[in-house]
Amino acid sequence: MTKELTKSALHGVIPPLVTPLDEQGEVDRRSLERVVSDQLDAGVHGVFVGGSTGEIALLDTARRTAAIEVVTGTVAGAVPVLAGAVDTGTLRVVEHARQAVRLGADAVVVTTPFYIRPHRDEIVEHFRQVHAAVDAPVIGYDIVSATGSRLTADIVAELASSGLIAGLKDSSGDLASFREILRRTELPAFTGSELLADTAVQLGGAGIVPGLGNVDPHGYVRLYRAVRESDVEAASAEQDRLARLFAITSVADQRRIGLTASVLGAYKAAMALRGLIDHPGTHPPLLPLNEAETRTIADILSDTGLLGS
Amino acid sequence: MTKELTKSALHGVIPPLVTPLDEQGEVDRRSLERVVSDQLDAGVHGVFVGGSTGEIALLDTARRTAAIEVVTGTVAGAVPVLAGAVDTGTLRVVEHARQAVRLGADAVVVTTPFYIRPHRDEIVEHFRQVHAAVDAPVIGYDIVSATGSRLTADIVAELASSGLIAGLKDSSGDLASFREILRRTELPAFTGSELLADTAVQLGGAGIVPGLGNVDPHGYVRLYRAVRESDVEAASAEQDRLARLFAITSVADQRRIGLTASVLGAYKAAMALRGLIDHPGTHPPLLPLNEAETRTIADILSDTGLLGS
Amino acid sequence: MTKELTKSALHGVIPPLVTPLDEQGEVDRRSLERVVSDQLDAGVHGVFVGGSTGEIALLDTARRTAAIEVVTGTVAGAVPVLAGAVDTGTLRVVEHARQAVRLGADAVVVTTPFYIRPHRDEIVEHFRQVHAAVDAPVIGYDIVSATGSRLTADIVAELASSGLIAGLKDSSGDLASFREILRRTELPAFTGSELLADTAVQLGGAGIVPGLGNVDPHGYVRLYRAVRESDVEAASAEQDRLARLFAITSVADQRRIGLTASVLGAYKAAMALRGLIDHPGTHPPLLPLNEAETRTIADILSDTGLLGS
Amino acid sequence: MTKELTKSALHGVIPPLVTPLDEQGEVDRRSLERVVSDQLDAGVHGVFVGGSTGEIALLDTARRTAAIEVVTGTVAGAVPVLAGAVDTGTLRVVEHARQAVRLGADAVVVTTPFYIRPHRDEIVEHFRQVHAAVDAPVIGYDIVSATGSRLTADIVAELASSGLIAGLKDSSGDLASFREILRRTELPAFTGSELLADTAVQLGGAGIVPGLGNVDPHGYVRLYRAVRESDVEAASAEQDRLARLFAITSVADQRRIGLTASVLGAYKAAMALRGLIDHPGTHPPLLPLNEAETRTIADILSDTGLLGS
Repeated sequence: MTKELTKSALHGVIPPLVTPLDEQGEVDRRSLERVVSDQLDAGVHGVFVGGSTGEIALLDTARRTAAIEVVTGTVAGAVPVLAGAVDTGTLRVVEHARQAVRLGADAVVVTTPFYIRPHRDEIVEHFRQVHAAVDAPVIGYDIVSATGSRLTADIVAELASSGLIAGLKDSSGDLASFREILRRTELPAFTGSELLADTAVQLGGAGIVPGLGNVDPHGYVRLYRAVRESDVEAASAEQDRLARLFAITSVADQRRIGLTASVLGAYKAAMALRGLIDHPGTHPPLLPLNEAETRTIADILSDTGLLGS
Repeated sequence: MTKELTKSALHGVIPPLVTPLDEQGEVDRRSLERVVSDQLDAGVHGVFVGGSTGEIALLDTARRTAAIEVVTGTVAGAVPVLAGAVDTGTLRVVEHARQAVRLGADAVVVTTPFYIRPHRDEIVEHFRQVHAAVDAPVIGYDIVSATGSRLTADIVAELASSGLIAGLKDSSGDLASFREILRRTELPAFTGSELLADTAVQLGGAGIVPGLGNVDPHGYVRLYRAVRESDVEAASAEQDRLARLFAITSVADQRRIGLTASVLGAYKAAMALRGLIDHPGTHPPLLPLNEAETRTIADILSDTGLLGS
Repeated sequence: MTKELTKSALHGVIPPLVTPLDEQGEVDRRSLERVVSDQLDAGVHGVFVGGSTGEIALLDTARRTAAIEVVTGTVAGAVPVLAGAVDTGTLRVVEHARQAVRLGADAVVVTTPFYIRPHRDEIVEHFRQVHAAVDAPVIGYDIVSATGSRLTADIVAELASSGLIAGLKDSSGDLASFREILRRTELPAFTGSELLADTAVQLGGAGIVPGLGNVDPHGYVRLYRAVRESDVEAASAEQDRLARLFAITSVADQRRIGLTASVLGAYKAAMALRGLIDHPGTHPPLLPLNEAETRTIADILSDTGLLGS
Repeated sequence: MTKELTKSALHGVIPPLVTPLDEQGEVDRRSLERVVSDQLDAGVHGVFVGGSTGEIALLDTARRTAAIEVVTGTVAGAVPVLAGAVDTGTLRVVEHARQAVRLGADAVVVTTPFYIRPHRDEIVEHFRQVHAAVDAPVIGYDIVSATGSRLTADIVAELASSGLIAGLKDSSGDLASFREILRRTELPAFTGSELLADTAVQLGGAGIVPGLGNVDPHGYVRLYRAVRESDVEAASAEQDRLARLFAITSVADQRRIGLTASVLGAYKAAMALRGLIDHPGTHPPLLPLNEAETRTIADILSDTGLLGS
């Protein structure tokens, strides 16, 4: 395919899909197909495979390939498929991105380089070379908590005006910067915030890439539609419910397991409880939630209407 | 090979080799062979391919493979070859490590996971699984400036007592922690500090993994031998000269290019000036030093006896 | 006064006043009176003396005393006066807070302890003791960029439910946390963001504490009123104009002076250009803006309607 | 007094004294006198009142005054008294420094500004103005863990060549930078590291400012003398014993109290167990160690020969 995903095609709710595991630690293809089907049923406007929520940093070549294959195969053109090309340096990212495009991804999602500590001009150079080497639109991905460097509004504006990126996923948590980007560019900009979804779209954001959308895609689709219909109260009420649901991500004791394990483990535990995936396991080295924590998550699912009690 | 690199084999000066490029941006195999030969002539006790200095974070599969092949082929068993298996998560690291072992590496060097923000128990789990999956000794690699997390003395002591690591490369800059590790374990521990090489070995460190050893392996070998022969003054004098040489790493203007580019670009510029490699280029997205900076580096090489004036 | 500032009294636009200097480096009392009068004319709902914008960290005892005296004296009860009691530890904060109350402040604004690295329970203990020792309402102040620690939503909820704080100034930049606090407490919560003022109030925030309000209090009062009158478009347009004005804070070259100097120097330069203060100087060790930067600020003031061209 | 503390006078072991409390939370003058006497008996070469270990960040004016008075009064000229003038900004520091000099301090110890985020040139400007305003030698104090900014070797070299500082206390933990400073300046440089004391002096450091010296001044004096007499083995053995003693600082559970509370609480607990001070309390908001932790500290004191068992 050529770089032709239109700007209007990039909008709405585009959840970053988890990568379910079977008991042997392999990608659980049937569970992943079920997840994709649930997303499409809910009316999402796209899906994002191989993001941070998809444990991209923990997948080897075989598992990364499997995840992309299942997703592009199951989606079968119904909505755009974004694929993460997340790695430390330019050549590695190009390698991942080309593979994702070969496997049917409609766009690739690219962070700042990490491990090396890049200068802002090296971040721009990174996107320049990725753009030149990959035959698909590139979405910039600001996830400073993972990479240690920002896609500042200045950098995004430069990337946008040079045509190097076709969109932005902003997981920086910095809504002031998000808003500045909306002011300064025409870029479709997506928030990665589960908790500011209504606000980000009201401010002009193109959509939402919520990890929690794995657990409750219907909720985010309702929220998005309410904003589009200017029903501020309905959007806000849905956002409040989703904020209560988001409490699952702080159930695990972070003196025992890490933040990433707490959040991704919670998503998968909730999805397993809802029957969307068979097993709640995460990839090594993430440690699992315990039973008490899983029960608390079940309680939260009940309280937010996602599990019969 | 099996996990049999003996403890006594792991000692001395083991420079983390740069990965030279040709003008097309491919690995310059002949330059890399020349670098390895220069190292062996200088009497190094091992070499480390695919470390941070080797731009491991910037190499794609083909280039990473080429670098390891050239190094193991040229070394041809003369000294141990360590290979970096540097990546974000466990399965990715196992994939790299197995490949390196297939290509002839005698040990693999593994950092804490990054991008995800691991709990200390997840760091231990990471090394447990890498150890179990890879048929070669694993060397722990603390490079907190790149990964954002430490291999604290507590974690290293746990890894050592469980037999999960066979050595440590400490690039934390924290000599108090290095010393605590020497007190608490029998592990061969290497400093990654160019500037505390004599001190680290005097305190009981097994050796040195100096990036600057690419530029002047003879200097580090002299320093190491002086310490071993308890010639503190000679060691200190050599360290002082190497500290003056290390000034090449702060020549580049860091308002223009990043820290990693400044340091690695300086090594390569100095090596090109010395005729060790054909081109000083670094991998994208690192930006190059300019001509004035390169001239300053030449001056420093002259002042430290490495270039005729 | 006793702890009786009612909740309803704490709302609206409460700018953190700059502390103007004369040419000898003393507090310029007449300029400060003029600033206060300009604020009251604009219809602000309170003023905040001795905040970060007031260079509280740079004022010695005499200057801090002078600033509070001038502000409480000039305000003369027209609106509530908040005073910063910003220091590293509990006893120091109590000392500052009691002095501020003696000088007529209606409430004190208190950050987390800093320099020491407090545990979250030590942060709570800090507020417990300050609350017990000071006869005025305490407003919590989250300014993690300065203190290095957060007033997380959890801590704020605990402080609120224990009655230890009567309000919150949130300069964390984290609107998701701000919103969670609004959900979980009844606390009047103020945003310190110049750029999310409309959004923060629309979400239920009690008001705004904008440093930029020194330069254009009328703008923030108009914005606040527009939100209160549910005129989203007018609020948004005003916010956009204020965002263009906020560009003055990134005019200075941060390779030459620090971020704090850039921002506070820009406010004072703009105020001097508008005739609100006599001199644009900041307290040592902050370095000044240069003439070219000041001219650029004048241009921005013209473009945003604050200076005749 | 005038700025005349000679360079040769600044050397040896200069512990940063704790500030003991009585049960009412006031400075326990008799305990502090006892601490000073114990230090002088041990043969220390100076004392440092009002450092981080002295909880300077937690003392109000009365307590800070009391601590300096007791120390200068008890020392009575026997050795130099250094006093911390630790605060966020220049004018505040000048105020503290002048008071300390009036109360008899022979030199003042000054960190980089904090809370504001200073540019390196603003750090230099800070020391320029403090130097000009204070009639006593100024010792630079690099404690980046508390202040968030470094006194880099470049800054120290500039301060030294301009005559703005008369010495350095380096608590950065960065021995490579310490060594570079020794190479580039003639400054008496002290390490704040409890664990690299022998090494720092062997490398040319003027001495040691060890918090742990409150608990065991004799140990650090023995270590310092051994280094001076080139008895490397004796120095190393003493350092090893002190490292075992330093384990008291990691006894407290840092899931319950903060790092500062853990370290300073451990020093005071050990001193109370040894009878040097009456009460182990720290200043608010630091939380106390519990009984089990105190018993563990007693065990460590026994194991290192400081408490009969």
